[in-house]
Amino acid sequence: MSYSLPKTSRTQLKRLPKRGSYDRDTLYAILDEALICHIGFVIDAQPFVIPTAYGRIDDRLYIHGSPASRMLRSLKQGIEICATVTLLDGLVLARSAFHHSMNYRSVVLFGTAEPVAAVAEKQRALQAFTEHVIPGRWEEVRQPTPQELAGTLVLSLPIVEASVKIRSGPPVDDVADQDWPVWAGVLPLQLAAKAPIADPQLTLGYEVPPALVNYRRG
Amino acid sequence: MSYSLPKTSRTQLKRLPKRGSYDRDTLYAILDEALICHIGFVIDAQPFVIPTAYGRIDDRLYIHGSPASRMLRSLKQGIEICATVTLLDGLVLARSAFHHSMNYRSVVLFGTAEPVAAVAEKQRALQAFTEHVIPGRWEEVRQPTPQELAGTLVLSLPIVEASVKIRSGPPVDDVADQDWPVWAGVLPLQLAAKAPIADPQLTLGYEVPPALVNYRRG
Repeated sequence: MSYSLPKTSRTQLKRLPKRGSYDRDTLYAILDEALICHIGFVIDAQPFVIPTAYGRIDDRLYIHGSPASRMLRSLKQGIEICATVTLLDGLVLARSAFHHSMNYRSVVLFGTAEPVAAVAEKQRALQAFTEHVIPGRWEEVRQPTPQELAGTLVLSLPIVEASVKIRSGPPVDDVADQDWPVWAGVLPLQLAAKAPIADPQLTLGYEVPPALVNYRRG
Repeated sequence: MSYSLPKTSRTQLKRLPKRGSYDRDTLYAILDEALICHIGFVIDAQPFVIPTAYGRIDDRLYIHGSPASRMLRSLKQGIEICATVTLLDGLVLARSAFHHSMNYRSVVLFGTAEPVAAVAEKQRALQAFTEHVIPGRWEEVRQPTPQELAGTLVLSLPIVEASVKIRSGPPVDDVADQDWPVWAGVLPLQLAAKAPIADPQLTLGYEVPPALVNYRRG
């Protein structure tokens, strides 16, 4: 059985199909490395794009928030969603302005979300949000009360119709420009952590969690 | 005269309005620091969200690409766009799972784009794309030929209807959780550059551009 996602009319890449992939492992690796997704949806013919945190469990993407959120209230009706996740990997510096580019890995996911009603699944989704950001954190913090669970809307989006697009490697210049007298190459970029800042309310000397030391994604 | 953007029904923040801003300088600073935006648009009631590079000149956001791009071909018809730019500034680690959050600065911009026809404006926009990414690069590289200019579709989106949302600072825990025995605080995040990788085709020893040494955004 193939472990790839099916190509559909929505996910078939029209431009530069060589940059595309429908491989689930590649797609999951991007979702697991990134921290935010951009959720697109339509209300009264008007597109909205809102950044939000998320978590993944197997072939489902979870988002959450207040039941008062306009976005979540709309999405839970089952309207069409496009969820896009982008990792910027580098600046591609060519010899010509025209061939400048960026290295990136992105996922574009289409579908409709449904509210998670079962308490056990909601709990697992909340755990996935926390563990997605800082592995090991869930077991150390005060876990959600029944009131907090009831006051959190969790939506589940199946990862069925999605595509990956990746650009990597050096610039591709015109042959005629090869001797243009300028440095050319890639400046790799990565999300990096600076020193943790303790909450000013933190009166006792708790240690910074190991997951925050040399924190990196991917 | 106020330098703020007007609140409209689309940009009025419904949730957590204290996190909102309509200040142009704040908005421009976010646009100038980030490198990619997520463009939302609708085709046949289906939302699409596509990441792309951009440039800003004064009160206009420019995007560009191949005239064959499905996104650009759709946008140039003047359909509604939502362009969202997000900077992730940190992980907010509370004592309860429920109060975990992220620090961020985001811009949500609504409007319609128009193709840039005038060659001089197109040229200025292309310069803005390059300079946005690496200041000083434009003067060093081979600039666009008339054929390349003709083969690039540039769209201009006025920055008129937009809002900023910012979360910053430490976690906000329930009073009852203040003594929960775990470290709490913020892990600041920032896009960072690694060592530049020269194009393998780069046979002569051109120096890495000064703008790439200690490259940082913001």
